[in-house]
Order: sequence, then C-alpha cells, then structure tokens
Amino acid sequence: MSKSTSVNPDLQREREKCTFNITELTNLLDGGPHMTEERKRREVMVLNEGIHIEEVPSEYLSHKEKYELAVKKACLMFKLIRRLQEEENAGMESFRAFLGGTLGSAILQDGSPLTLHYVMFIPTLMGQATVEQQAYWIGRAFNLDIIGTYAQTELGHGTFIRGLETTATYDAKTKEFVLHSPTLTAYKWWPGGLAHSANYCIVMAQLYTNGQCHGIHPFIVQLRDEETHMPLKGIKVGEIGAKLGMNGTNNGFLGFEHVRIPREHMLMKNSQVLEDGTYVKSPSSKLTYGTMMFVRVVIVKDMCNYIAKAVTIATRYSAVRRQSQPKPDEPEPQILDYLTQQHKLMVGISTAHAFQLSAEWIWNMYNNVTAELDAGDLERLPELHALSCCLKAITTGDAAECVERCRLACGGHGYMLSSNLPHTYGLVTAACTYEGENTVLLLQTARYLVKTWQQAQGGNSLPPTVAYLSRVGAGRRVPPWDNSIEGIIHGFQQVAAGKIALCVANIEKRQKSGMAYEDAWNMTSVQLAQASEAHCRAFILSSYFEETERQVKGVSPALREVLLQLVDLYVVYWALQRIGDLLRFTSISERDIEKLQHWYEELLTKLRPNAVGLVDAFDLRDEILHSTLGAYDGRVYERLMEEALKSPLNAEPVNQSFHKYLKPFMQGKL
Amino acid sequence: MSKSTSVNPDLQREREKCTFNITELTNLLDGGPHMTEERKRREVMVLNEGIHIEEVPSEYLSHKEKYELAVKKACLMFKLIRRLQEEENAGMESFRAFLGGTLGSAILQDGSPLTLHYVMFIPTLMGQATVEQQAYWIGRAFNLDIIGTYAQTELGHGTFIRGLETTATYDAKTKEFVLHSPTLTAYKWWPGGLAHSANYCIVMAQLYTNGQCHGIHPFIVQLRDEETHMPLKGIKVGEIGAKLGMNGTNNGFLGFEHVRIPREHMLMKNSQVLEDGTYVKSPSSKLTYGTMMFVRVVIVKDMCNYIAKAVTIATRYSAVRRQSQPKPDEPEPQILDYLTQQHKLMVGISTAHAFQLSAEWIWNMYNNVTAELDAGDLERLPELHALSCCLKAITTGDAAECVERCRLACGGHGYMLSSNLPHTYGLVTAACTYEGENTVLLLQTARYLVKTWQQAQGGNSLPPTVAYLSRVGAGRRVPPWDNSIEGIIHGFQQVAAGKIALCVANIEKRQKSGMAYEDAWNMTSVQLAQASEAHCRAFILSSYFEETERQVKGVSPALREVLLQLVDLYVVYWALQRIGDLLRFTSISERDIEKLQHWYEELLTKLRPNAVGLVDAFDLRDEILHSTLGAYDGRVYERLMEEALKSPLNAEPVNQSFHKYLKPFMQGKL
Repeated sequence: MSKSTSVNPDLQREREKCTFNITELTNLLDGGPHMTEERKRREVMVLNEGIHIEEVPSEYLSHKEKYELAVKKACLMFKLIRRLQEEENAGMESFRAFLGGTLGSAILQDGSPLTLHYVMFIPTLMGQATVEQQAYWIGRAFNLDIIGTYAQTELGHGTFIRGLETTATYDAKTKEFVLHSPTLTAYKWWPGGLAHSANYCIVMAQLYTNGQCHGIHPFIVQLRDEETHMPLKGIKVGEIGAKLGMNGTNNGFLGFEHVRIPREHMLMKNSQVLEDGTYVKSPSSKLTYGTMMFVRVVIVKDMCNYIAKAVTIATRYSAVRRQSQPKPDEPEPQILDYLTQQHKLMVGISTAHAFQLSAEWIWNMYNNVTAELDAGDLERLPELHALSCCLKAITTGDAAECVERCRLACGGHGYMLSSNLPHTYGLVTAACTYEGENTVLLLQTARYLVKTWQQAQGGNSLPPTVAYLSRVGAGRRVPPWDNSIEGIIHGFQQVAAGKIALCVANIEKRQKSGMAYEDAWNMTSVQLAQASEAHCRAFILSSYFEETERQVKGVSPALREVLLQLVDLYVVYWALQRIGDLLRFTSISERDIEKLQHWYEELLTKLRPNAVGLVDAFDLRDEILHSTLGAYDGRVYERLMEEALKSPLNAEPVNQSFHKYLKPFMQGKL
Repeated sequence: MSKSTSVNPDLQREREKCTFNITELTNLLDGGPHMTEERKRREVMVLNEGIHIEEVPSEYLSHKEKYELAVKKACLMFKLIRRLQEEENAGMESFRAFLGGTLGSAILQDGSPLTLHYVMFIPTLMGQATVEQQAYWIGRAFNLDIIGTYAQTELGHGTFIRGLETTATYDAKTKEFVLHSPTLTAYKWWPGGLAHSANYCIVMAQLYTNGQCHGIHPFIVQLRDEETHMPLKGIKVGEIGAKLGMNGTNNGFLGFEHVRIPREHMLMKNSQVLEDGTYVKSPSSKLTYGTMMFVRVVIVKDMCNYIAKAVTIATRYSAVRRQSQPKPDEPEPQILDYLTQQHKLMVGISTAHAFQLSAEWIWNMYNNVTAELDAGDLERLPELHALSCCLKAITTGDAAECVERCRLACGGHGYMLSSNLPHTYGLVTAACTYEGENTVLLLQTARYLVKTWQQAQGGNSLPPTVAYLSRVGAGRRVPPWDNSIEGIIHGFQQVAAGKIALCVANIEKRQKSGMAYEDAWNMTSVQLAQASEAHCRAFILSSYFEETERQVKGVSPALREVLLQLVDLYVVYWALQRIGDLLRFTSISERDIEKLQHWYEELLTKLRPNAVGLVDAFDLRDEILHSTLGAYDGRVYERLMEEALKSPLNAEPVNQSFHKYLKPFMQGKL
C-alpha cells in the first residue's frame, strides 16, 4: 500500500485533525476487526490477480468491445472465485462481494454477463426445483457445464407479472411443454446474460394444461447448443441494445416459436403437472415471494455501497478543491468549508450509515420470517413484504439522489466519466426500476398500510413495524412537540399515521360519492404513495436511531460522539425536508423550526473536521473507487490529466477527420 | 409525412378526444402561424439532406469513432447552413435552431465540435474586438479560414473567474504578450472543439504589464498550423476524455509554454495595452457581463426544448403502454390513466410552458437593459444579473428533474439509449454546472436580495422584479389566505420575503455574536440559497400566470380553458411542493391544503384527455425526438425491437468471445 507517500497536504491535514479512530469505525462497519481483516485479505488476493486493470479504459471502447471485455473479465473473475472456493472450502455466500458488491464492481464496472447465473439461475433452482431436479441441474450449473439466466420480464410487461404473455402448454401425448411467444410484446426482454452468454434459461411462462391457464410457472429451457453456442431451433435470441449503464450485462431478448421441452423441465417443487396433465397446486402461492424479497434486501445493502463510494469521492475532492475568495486577504478555501457543500455531502455520509443499519434490521427480520415460514407460519409475511417494498423504493430513490448530488457537488469534473460518478449513478438509478418499479412498490405498501389502519380502527393489535399506528391514531389529541431526536421520530410516525388516515378518509369519501373502490384508490394514489413514503421514513429514522444507540454502547467515547452526531444530522435533515408534513400533523412551531435549522447548521460545523475521516472509514480502496477525484492520496488534477491522456484520440496530434472533413470544409471543397 | 398511416389505436383515440385545436396551440408556441410554417419549412429542408441518418446508431461506436462522426456531421451541417444563408440572404440568428436548439440536436445528438466557433468565438470577437480587429478576424472566421473556440475555464478554476491562473505578460521590447500556464491547474479544461477541431482560440488570461496584474482579459491565439493542423510550438493541446454526455463536443485542454503573440492579438474594445505597456482601463468592467447573460437567457430557452422533448416521449409512451389490472373484468389500462403517472407527466408539460413564457419575459428585459446600457444607463444591470442567475439555476435544476422523472416514468424502457431520454438527461444536467454552477448562482442572487431587502427597509423604492419585497415586508400583518391562483402567487412572494428577512436576521445575529460577515454569510448560506430559490419560484409563477392571462385573450375558448388549466396545475403543484414554506410564512390552513390537494387531483383528471394533444402541440418531429418510445405513430414495441436488431452484437449469432473465453472457461481450460 502506497497510502503514506505524497498525499495531498490538504487531505493530510484533514486526517490529522480527525477526532476519532478511523480503524475503529471501519471495524464497526465491517462487523468486527476480524471481518475487516478478512475483507482486506480477500481484496488484496483478488486485486493482485490484476483482472480489473484495463489497457484502454473501457469508456473508450465500442459497445461490442465492451461486451467482449466483460466476458473476458467475468470468466477470469469466476475462475478465481472457483479457485478460492476450492482453496478455502467456502460457500457462495462469502463471495457475495464479487457479485453485487464493491469488489465485483471494481472488476466489472459496467456489469457482468454471468452474474445472473449465480444470483438468479442457481438460487431459483435451489428454491423451486424438486430434489431430483436439483440433483441433476445444480451440479451442472455449479460445474459450469451450463450457464444459465432467469427470464421473467417481457417487452410488454414488467412489474405486473400476471400480465406476462409467454405460454407453456402441456401436450400430454408427448409429455412435453410447448413454449411460445404469441405476440411481439411476449418476447422476454432485459434478462442479463441472456443475449449471447447463457445457454440455458429459467423461463417464467403462463402454464396451460387441459385447456386451462394456471398462471406463471418456472421452466428450464435450453437456448443454445452446448458445443457450438448456436441458438436452437425456434429460439429467437439477441441483445436489446445500448443502455444508460450496465453495458457489460448483455441484457437480452428471447422469443419462442413452439419450442418443445420435456415435462421434467418444469420446476416442480411447488406446483406440479402430472403426466396426464393434471395440475397439482402449490400449498401456498406465497412461497415464491421468497427469492424476490431476498433480492430486494440485497438491493438495500448494495445502495449503502454505492452511496459510500460516491460520498467518498466527493468529500475527498471537496477537501482538495479550493475555489473563490470570500475574504480578500485569505487564500481560496477548500470547498468543503462552504456550508452549502457540507449540506450536500454530510447527509450522504449519514445516509450510508442509516441504510446499512436498516438493511441489517430487515435482514434479521427476513431471516426470522423465513424460519417461521419453514415452520409453516405465514403471519409476518405481509408485513415483511410491505416493508421490503417501500424500503427498496425509498433507499434506491434516495441513493440515486445522493449519488447525483455528489456528482453535481464535484462541478464539471463530476461530469467526467473518469470521476466514476456518472457510472455509479447509472447503476443506482437502474435499481429504481428493476425488481419492482418504485411507485408501484410504494402503492403495494400503501395497500398494506390502509388495511392495517382499518384493522387498528377495529381494535386489532398490529405487527411490530406498524404498531405505532395504534399508538398515534388519528383523531387523538396531538401531543406537545418535543424538539429532540426521539420527538422528531415520533413526529414522523404521527405524519405517517396522519397521512394514512387522510388517504382512508379520501377513499371513503370518494366511494360515498359513487366511485368504485379502484377508482377512488387511483384518485388518491398520489397521496397514498406519499403516505407509504412517510411510513418508510419513520421506519428508517427509528431503526437508524435505535440501532445506533445499541451500537455505541461498545465503542470509544470519541467515536460515539461522532456516530450520534451523524444520527442527529440525519434526523434533523429529514425534519427540515419534511417541515410541511410536521406542521400539518404535529404541533411543531416556527420557533422549533428555526431551532432545528440552527441545530442542523451547528451539526454540519461539528462534523466538518471529521468529514474526510468518516469517508476514509468506509475503507474503499482506490481500485474500488476507480475515480480520478476520489483516490486516497488526493492527486486529483494529476489523475485527471493522466486519464485524459489515455484517450485514444490523444494518441495522434491530428485526427484523420481533419484531412477527411474539416480541411475540405474550410476550403469550401466538401 | 406518414403521420396518418398505421398509428397505434390508443394514440389515435387520444387525438380524437382532444378538446382543443392542436395546430392553434402549436402556432401560439411558435409565435404565430407564419413562424410555424417557416420552422416546418426549414425542418423539411434540413432533414431532407439526410445528415442526421446514421448507418450504425452512434451509441454503438467507440469514443474515437463518435468524434469522427461528429466532425463529419458538423461540417456537413454548417456547410448546409452556409448554403441556406446565401440562398436566403439571412443572418446567423435565424439558424439558431441548428446550434443549441432542437434541429441541431437532431443532427448532432451528442454535441458538435464546431458550435463554439459560432456561439462563442465569433460573438466574442464582435463584442470585445476593436473595429480594426473585427475587420480582420470576423471575415476570416465567417469564411471558415479559421475555426475558433473560447477558452476560459481551467483545470483548477471554473465559476470563480478571478482565480484563473493563465498569464499573459506584456513584453514591451518585442511588443508581444507571453502566454503561459504556470501550473498544471492553469491548463484550460473543457472548451468545446478545443481538443482537435479548432485552430484558433480566444484565451482568457491574467494580464500583466509593467509587473502589474490587471485581471482577466481576452487574447486571440493560434493553436494549430492552418495547413497541417499540427499544434504549434509551446501549445499543449488534447481532449479531456469521455464524459457523461456530449461526447461529440471534443472538449479539450490547453497549456502554454511561454507562447508569444503580437500585441494586436489582445481584444481591445474595452481595455487596452499601449505599445509601451501602459494599461488603459475599460470604461465599465460590467460591459463584459453581456455575453455571459446572453448565454444564460439562451439556456432557459433550451431547457424548454429539452423538457418538451422528454415529456412528449413519456406521454406518448404512457398512452401506448398498458399495465396491471386494477379491475378484474376490464382490460389493462393505459398507464396514462394512473393518477401517479399523470402526476409525473403533467407538471412537465406545464413546466415547458412556464419556462417558455419566463424565457420570453427575461429576453425582453435583457433587450431593454441592453438598450439602456448602450445609452450608458447601468441601473437595471444588477437586477437583470440577479434574475438571470437564479433563473438559470432553477430552470436547469427543474429541467433535469423533469427529464429524469419522464425517463423513470417509462420504466425499464426509459433506461434504453434508444428511448433518447438518457441522452437528453446528459445534456440537461450538464447545464446545471456550466455557465455558472447552480449553487454559486443562487448565492449571487441571494447577495442581491439581501442588499435589496436592506434598501427596502431604508424606505428606498425597488426595481420591478423585486418590488414585491416592499409590499410584503416582514413584520407586517400576515393577510388572510386566499386559496386562488393569485393568492398562491402572493403567498410565494410572502415566502420569499419571509426567507430573505430570516436570512438577514440570522446573519446579523451571527455578526453580533462576533462572527465576521463572510463567516455569518457562510453559516447562513443553505438558507440563503433557499431564499433565492423562493424568489425565483415567485417570479416564474407570476410571469407564467400574467403572460398566460395576456396570451389567452387572443385564443379560442377551448384552448383558453386548457392553457388556464395548465397554469392552475403548475401553481397548485408548486404550492403543494412548498406547503412547509406556505405554512410558515402565510396563513394557509389545513383545510386549504386539503382543498389544494383535491384541486390538483381534479386538474390532473381534467387535463388527462388532452395529454397527448398537449405534447403533439410541441410539434417535435420524429427525427428530433429520435426515440423508440416517443414517435408520432406510437409503434413503441416494434421500434424497440428494430433498434435492438441494429446492435452490432446482433449481427452474429455467436460472438467470438464464446470461443475465446466462455467455452474454455466452462471447460476449465481458461
């Protein structure tokens, strides 16, 4: 590590004035010193392989070259994973960092064509294949005899799964399913690795037996010849084209022209089709929600990484960059000294902490609920589902905003791809749409909240994450405002309850005026989405606060002070963002608001000296940050120039287009 | 025009139910039927040339190929402009649409390497060169004997112009200036066309004569040999690398190693250096603000175009896309029927109108002030400057939000480059940073507002755009809330006044507690930026309302109704977005808020049937939209597939990387 040599003096000074032990915070974020050590060991091991090093930065390549580079890197990366698994006798889980996490994105910055093989194909086999099917397929998949992906979304249907059009019709005579795409919109569209990489695929299709439709079921389908990789007969497969980001993921389309597969290729752990075509229903259709929820929880964890990355880049840059001269006799200040800049960055730092703790909270809940599920208890499933929906929506939305704010906080240089901020935004904003479009998800949570609200009105007791709704029911006296962290969190719960109550009242009023329930719901849906957001804000604020209170019991006083300041900052920031809601649904006063504003400004000033220490504690290596603006040593301008010189356009002093177009044009001869 | 053949039936139905005459609105937006005709004529003429047609869509090209294509297209486009100018004997102005406007971006979607020659190089010569200099240079520039650009921003300094480091030192012995880049951060960085396209450049540099620095002045410098295009001795020039967008603009860096230019190459209309090195100051340093303000006003107009484009694409897509099934017995609704979708789109439509009218307003003000300037009257310059600063910041920020909301409203398909929404966002978000970083601009306006507030307290009369500050001064009785459009606009003025007053009080309080004014300002700067935003919102709302009131006097009743609904929607939308502010600074009540919410929902429902008609009225041709999702005929899915098939990856069924990497990897032989 060359961390000690020639660090920018401004950054050096920032580190010297940091009031807490950076390593202590890193250990806390990792889950203990041994976890930090393990992570660092793995990072060194992987990065020593040099797979991440690019001769020409990939942003200069053509679309096709980008894909070819991605295949090369993905193969080398998964080869390495396989080697490490064998050496360490470890399972897949310990290498999650390669896939969606920081280390994987350091190697495959623009996405990997093989990721879905590991995160969707194999897990779906594990979750939905029978024991016999697993015995056959999982071994082949693990050994990479086959490479698979998972195809659900179609050109015409995304979030609304019931609307999928691909059909799988059972033919009892041949004991086969016939897969077919009856329309253009039935084409599968988006699955990663589908275009040119996978040769097998799990396809979600409408199951028909004996002339009856039984809804969406999973089928395993061979797409390409295992030897030649040529698409099989009746398989129309290709890539969907260039995207805002993730151009290494090889997203594909897939159409079927009456493609026949054996009956055994339907994944039958849950529902079955017998040889004669008899359909045997799954004991609970809710079981299939498992994978989807798992993925959503993983997304929340990924958002923490992206925010940490962006805010590390922007904060270090802000310590190096000097601009303007507010006082005539003093040098230009670091832009980190401007309160407006602190305002853009600090909330990013605290958001990374808040989401990490919220992710851990829901991760634990997920594991508990899964254990209950295995024991046949489905009671907390709707609550988990509702929470995972709004949490996915809010964390991806907030993360996109945080990353974009960080990029803009770096001014023009943030617009350079070499800053790595545009790339990071591309990855984060994709998450606002995939695995459930955010507005749709918020409305799913809202549906649960409305139902729960009505239960609470009926005097029923409520599950933990919505228990506050019976405490702060509508119509009760609004308690006096308490201008403390607990008071604000309680205020947010009042806001959520107030908004839900208002929605329920609006829907009822509209129904009374003659509207159908669905229309009344639709007319109220802008408010419903906002109520859902308010519920999620209350959850994040309170879980962040409570988990931090628990966590700081085991840390040094210096670190405790900073962690609590971060919680304060986050909570006060959101109070100020939602002053209108607080004014409507709590008894907060103008004096309270002005105090909050001053509290916020004081917190920024208090956190200012620790800004660089706080982002250092995320401990993201330069190879992971991959940014001219964010490297540990702060050689911002040198790196910008070094990266510029790598542009193939700079390899020649005069580009051929001068002779071909520009000169003839100037001479009037074009 | 194939507008009538095979239009998607849903889109067709939308057009049939439109309640107003679409052509009437188009004419109104263009400024009259003859203007519409003229625009259409020019579009046909230009697009018939086919310069915009790409064999392979440019998103599949390498960075270098993109540049080469951009040079080719730019040369052909400007050749065409020259031809048209000669044919029609028209000036540059009538072809502005080619440069920043819709037609230019249809041809050069990713920016042009020659634009700055026309929008900065020639105008700067016209504004800052002496008559003799103009006689020599402008002819050469117009004839394209030389191609120029304008270099101000440096690696280390952007918005803070005083901090620029490039020096131009006069050598009286040889009557030359010596241009030099004393540091790495002194390198010019960003100018469009600088990298490999321009051979001349106007360079802004710190002028030194007789050992004294006189600040930033413009110099014309030859960069490359006119014949060979090779960089001249001492000139370090190249491109800065790949960016989030605008990769056709060929942004460059430029460093000088003691480069000598004749004394006559300083542009001396305003300030001069005599032969002996005597510096003669400009009569007013404010004169040079002209170009900068002109560019800002142009930016506001451009934002209208981008918003219109994005909202046309997203609205048409939303009429074609059907999803989900809220009522079991009915077909899937068009997503445009969801109130949440209307919420995302309608405000975009009204924003395009609001910004167009605000742009016209400030355009007129700019022309008036320029006329006064020419008559030596500088009085309204600070007001214009303050308004142009916040208007640039708010319109670019809002436009970025609008475009991104439109992109996300198209779900996954909005993430495809073929939707053209990511590209559009790349262009719009760039405007948040260039020509003055938005936060810095808001604080410049705030400085003016604080000063004006203090003048008002002293009883002085105020210029028109801030006159409301003396009407609704702080400390006065808050008038009863009026839940009408005028009432809301008045409420926004109260908010702006209240925020400015609070900022002034905070700064004074901090000064009294011992802080320097600059520190007190900084500590209050988050609030100051918000006050500045509030002022700008009040301006946009009132100018949109007043201009529409004026405008609708001349239109049919059917169109009048829709235009007024759009104003209502815009004003009520912003009231609901800023409920916290209204609750703090006006006497609005909870009942008023609930009424506003219902009013808003009703307005969405009323405007819903005219949504497609409203975006059709922007009359953006398919070639300009350049979008799979937004074309006039609504063949969304067909176009998505057609575009996907253009990907070079789809030209071969098996990519070479299968044989090279994937197969060896699967066989354990990699």
